[in-house]
Amino acid sequence: MRLVTYTTAPMTSAADRLGAQADGLVYDLAALALHAGVELPADLLSFVRAGAPAREAAALLLAGDPADRPAGAVHRLEDVTLRAPLRPGKIIGVGLNYVEHVEESSRSLDTDKDLPPRPVLFSKPATAVTGPGSPILHNADLTTQLDWECELAVVIGTTAFRVTEEEAYGHIFGYSIVNDISARDQRRSGQWFFSKGQDSYAPFGPAVVTADEVPDPMDLDLELRVNGVTKQKSNTRHMLFPIARLIADVSSGVTLEPGDVIATGSPSGVGAGMVPPEFLVPGDTVEATVEIIGTLANPVVDAR
Amino acid sequence: MRLVTYTTAPMTSAADRLGAQADGLVYDLAALALHAGVELPADLLSFVRAGAPAREAAALLLAGDPADRPAGAVHRLEDVTLRAPLRPGKIIGVGLNYVEHVEESSRSLDTDKDLPPRPVLFSKPATAVTGPGSPILHNADLTTQLDWECELAVVIGTTAFRVTEEEAYGHIFGYSIVNDISARDQRRSGQWFFSKGQDSYAPFGPAVVTADEVPDPMDLDLELRVNGVTKQKSNTRHMLFPIARLIADVSSGVTLEPGDVIATGSPSGVGAGMVPPEFLVPGDTVEATVEIIGTLANPVVDAR
Repeated sequence: MRLVTYTTAPMTSAADRLGAQADGLVYDLAALALHAGVELPADLLSFVRAGAPAREAAALLLAGDPADRPAGAVHRLEDVTLRAPLRPGKIIGVGLNYVEHVEESSRSLDTDKDLPPRPVLFSKPATAVTGPGSPILHNADLTTQLDWECELAVVIGTTAFRVTEEEAYGHIFGYSIVNDISARDQRRSGQWFFSKGQDSYAPFGPAVVTADEVPDPMDLDLELRVNGVTKQKSNTRHMLFPIARLIADVSSGVTLEPGDVIATGSPSGVGAGMVPPEFLVPGDTVEATVEIIGTLANPVVDAR
Repeated sequence: MRLVTYTTAPMTSAADRLGAQADGLVYDLAALALHAGVELPADLLSFVRAGAPAREAAALLLAGDPADRPAGAVHRLEDVTLRAPLRPGKIIGVGLNYVEHVEESSRSLDTDKDLPPRPVLFSKPATAVTGPGSPILHNADLTTQLDWECELAVVIGTTAFRVTEEEAYGHIFGYSIVNDISARDQRRSGQWFFSKGQDSYAPFGPAVVTADEVPDPMDLDLELRVNGVTKQKSNTRHMLFPIARLIADVSSGVTLEPGDVIATGSPSGVGAGMVPPEFLVPGDTVEATVEIIGTLANPVVDAR
């Protein structure tokens, strides 16, 4: 199932709605549930927390007789505005998780040349999240080195503390995309929080695809384009620490909760690594694509 | 007002309650409000979000006739179990924010000898929060360098984005204590997230004292003791970047929301800086004291 959070009235304060996307259509799950007299959480975070029963109920609703759908329960994708799928309790990022990016980063970003022996973890706050199509804020008073990173995002489904690599996939709800935006010149004594944690620095979406529809998350093509020009092109199989290892490692000390997101790291091709370096400026559009998940596109706007 | 979150039945799943503490007593604000027919948020995060009207309503309830208090609305402090005051949306930590600690840290923790030109920001997730009296988890499989840091915690009251230093104090709800626990040997390629973000690594409390009762937060004595022996002793006046500057700096890029916490940094006297280094082991008790706020005491337990 391809789950989206959307609104049909982006300029009003109308509540965001939980939808399922298929064949260019978005199905309003709350409207279908109401019509069928079924209980269903009305937002994606609650839906994730509700576990398998909610997923099964939603699947039944979507499989129902098309003639029995209430008016207004189905929209064309182009008629809705997508939002970030949910507001995560935490977003854990993984630095230097693609071998070629480790090399590139050591040339341009004062990180080690050697492969890290353990996952390099950092975090982005929920306030950094922005949705598909929403602006990435470029504040020239703070940065002249705004950079991109296309990453497969793992959305946690069930609480995980000290789980093994073998158990890890059982805790995954689904997959999405995070564009791990950084102001490279806002690293603070080496710490990445302010560099990577500013508002709009975590574009997230466009959908969360449930785990059952991603046969092999360790074999997904990734690609990132700026103004249509390909900058990053890789495959998740090149991760240094694979998804199961990341979940086992993080959960060895940090409880992962439903809706938490692990951004699994960026391949090479970031702007800081170009010769000469290239950075985002107002007017640019960044598109991050992950196979099966889709494309997360965001404009860069002047936000001084 | 000294606000606490507490329970009278720690071994059951009874909901935590919002209380006001005075003269060794804890007043159940929800019970007082119910009795008086007044609307009042039932948990501290909602109370913070509700702003001045909630504070004024609570103050009126506490000033009411003692003879008119309903049964069960007042507890002796020693009869209740305190919890962490609230679950913050984010906890932003400030590294190297006391001059002597910068020097100490450069000797023992591979940080720069020079004073940082900008606040060194990092974050701890909400899952790291633990309450007064609750265990700090010592997992010897992950660390043999578990360390303490006594810090004044600023609790944000109203949303702050791009606020000036002059406006900063207007966004503060109150003050508390965070013990910024670190596993020094879990820094990952310099990033502090896993070192400082593990479960129980953010003891928080014992109370949140509203801003009106803290005349000068930049002149508060801090002290930390391990098993009764003083390890840290300083005053918030020695902060490198004062509170107003921290709020202005963070909010220049990161929206601060009601209930967010800024842990304003640790003075010198951390275990890693001792000669030879000293670290926490199971059986230890750590007490972090900040003038006016009180003492946050936590045992260290073996959690392998």
